[in-house]
Amino acid sequence: MLQPPVFGKVQAGMAHNELRKDYLLNRWVVIATERARRPTDFAKNKTEQPKTVNCPLCPGNEHVTPPAMLVYLPSEGGIRKDKEQGDFRSKNWLLRNIPNLYPAFSPPKDADDSKIMKSRNFGYAVGHHEVLVESPNHTDHPANMELGQLVLVVNAYKDRLRDLSQKPYVRYVQIFRNHGLEAGASLSHAHSQIVATPFIPPVVSDEMEASRNYHKEHGRCFFCDLIKQEAQTPRLILDGGHFTVFAPYASVHPLEFWIVPKRHTPNFLSLTKEETEAFAQTLKTTLKALKDLVNDPPYNFGIHLAINKDAQDSYHWHLEVYPKLAIWAGFEKSTGIYINTVTPETAAQELKKTIQQTPTD
Amino acid sequence: MLQPPVFGKVQAGMAHNELRKDYLLNRWVVIATERARRPTDFAKNKTEQPKTVNCPLCPGNEHVTPPAMLVYLPSEGGIRKDKEQGDFRSKNWLLRNIPNLYPAFSPPKDADDSKIMKSRNFGYAVGHHEVLVESPNHTDHPANMELGQLVLVVNAYKDRLRDLSQKPYVRYVQIFRNHGLEAGASLSHAHSQIVATPFIPPVVSDEMEASRNYHKEHGRCFFCDLIKQEAQTPRLILDGGHFTVFAPYASVHPLEFWIVPKRHTPNFLSLTKEETEAFAQTLKTTLKALKDLVNDPPYNFGIHLAINKDAQDSYHWHLEVYPKLAIWAGFEKSTGIYINTVTPETAAQELKKTIQQTPTD
Repeated sequence: MLQPPVFGKVQAGMAHNELRKDYLLNRWVVIATERARRPTDFAKNKTEQPKTVNCPLCPGNEHVTPPAMLVYLPSEGGIRKDKEQGDFRSKNWLLRNIPNLYPAFSPPKDADDSKIMKSRNFGYAVGHHEVLVESPNHTDHPANMELGQLVLVVNAYKDRLRDLSQKPYVRYVQIFRNHGLEAGASLSHAHSQIVATPFIPPVVSDEMEASRNYHKEHGRCFFCDLIKQEAQTPRLILDGGHFTVFAPYASVHPLEFWIVPKRHTPNFLSLTKEETEAFAQTLKTTLKALKDLVNDPPYNFGIHLAINKDAQDSYHWHLEVYPKLAIWAGFEKSTGIYINTVTPETAAQELKKTIQQTPTD
Repeated sequence: MLQPPVFGKVQAGMAHNELRKDYLLNRWVVIATERARRPTDFAKNKTEQPKTVNCPLCPGNEHVTPPAMLVYLPSEGGIRKDKEQGDFRSKNWLLRNIPNLYPAFSPPKDADDSKIMKSRNFGYAVGHHEVLVESPNHTDHPANMELGQLVLVVNAYKDRLRDLSQKPYVRYVQIFRNHGLEAGASLSHAHSQIVATPFIPPVVSDEMEASRNYHKEHGRCFFCDLIKQEAQTPRLILDGGHFTVFAPYASVHPLEFWIVPKRHTPNFLSLTKEETEAFAQTLKTTLKALKDLVNDPPYNFGIHLAINKDAQDSYHWHLEVYPKLAIWAGFEKSTGIYINTVTPETAAQELKKTIQQTPTD
């Protein structure tokens, strides 16, 4: 059964590396301090990104992408949201959400397709796979985006989550972002991706089961307890009004951090206007600190959330940022044990210092 | 409960990508045929490997490495195995096994250290971390190594497994190989790594639990059944006297393949001389086919095995090869669902064809 995590300290001159287990998953990490690297050791000269000729996501090239299902347009006194139909393609957009040209998951085409699972180990990848073009400006990434634009991005996440989660064959919606070629971003134009799946993916489902057990045992949400505890450790990065940011105890990635809302809610559909702005600000501040600390490293982030009814009390949405500063090799892939050469405590202190040294907008 | 796997066929013009689940693990893959890539599309011009000046693993530089714990030396009428002591460092070696200079896991230093797990989520990384220098020749990788040398490598795996598995604090021994910079090989000299851990790692432990359940239900080893079934599918690559090679049904890596012994045995300590040679030959043949097919791609391989008593009947050792031809990005890391753009059926046919076109030694 789950217990509140023990917060081990890395001690100088310790005989062995620490072995730490994730809060909820059966996933272990060796904090390999003998290889001790300071976070800034990861800063490297950037490989020249190949020049993008005729980026398909840039304004003017709307005709080479599938028609958007959602476009934000400037409008008198605010934003107009258009759902595009047929071959009409809006210009002058602030943000647009389009189907992925090579979708991993695709909508059911006929009644039979919605019978997704054919056996316990075989089915069809029924769902959705979308690309959210975050800005008309090619290089307008969250770390350097105007706050107002990032608020639009978060609102678009909400719009798409609301729409996709109502479809009868959708059980989960994974919102994620790949930044930089080495983190799998095949297009360099600022974008996120949204994938709707016909079952709850293993990582999320394992987290849900463990947090459901914790809730049964303690009568409280695991994440609500966690942020209170982590706020008392050197792993704390930012403790704002609405969000707590920390480097998790068993970080598997160097400089990994999580953004967790203080208010218990299984997903972000109920975010208020104030919370939405606070979330955008927190995301921008922390991603900018990561960019400044290690010279704009590649990273992935993913939002974990629950839309299923049986996880409303026990699951708590959050965003996990995974800087891509190490390679998972034969050991990690064979065992499911990871090696992290930066302690989360050091990572948090360095990110915190970087934030404090940065003038706010 | 486990059932024998269903062998779905990828059908041309199918409405959706296939969703396949691993034989034993709760791990899913989308076979994304719409992005359809032929295996040879992955062949790329190699990034120039930085020239190795004074490689620490090359002969003549034994003094910059820790003393070996095992050295194979040429001897009249065969091989002499030396266990090195103190600062003595043999020259003219055929193969040497040394401690990793930056070990993730390290031996207990006093009695107290052997109390490894301090709580359910915290402990010390007690164990071993070794580097097996496979040949005095810097570029002597298994795909192009003399068969006799590769037999020595397999024998050294056996020697180290026998030694490490007898230590009271060791519960698992992970033998693996990283090939190429992009697959995490920080040294380009031909080498494998051996890590002994104080608990059975999550991936292996999950496999063991599932195969134990299968054994309870069916009275047979899952892997014994599996190789008979896979031999009847287009995923078969090689069906030799002692080993079956196939691309697994739910391959998460493009061109992934597994080498599974036909004789049931939980680990390879009991391999006969003939089986050892057959294993070396199978490894060489298949890795050479991978090298020839996609221009010497980076890869990882890992040996899965059991040394624990409660898995002797139900677990069956094998080697898994993971070519590094794709990037696991935000979707994979957030969900535990993988996307593979090459069907295992295509992968197997191409590897099989490459083997058939290659003259044998």
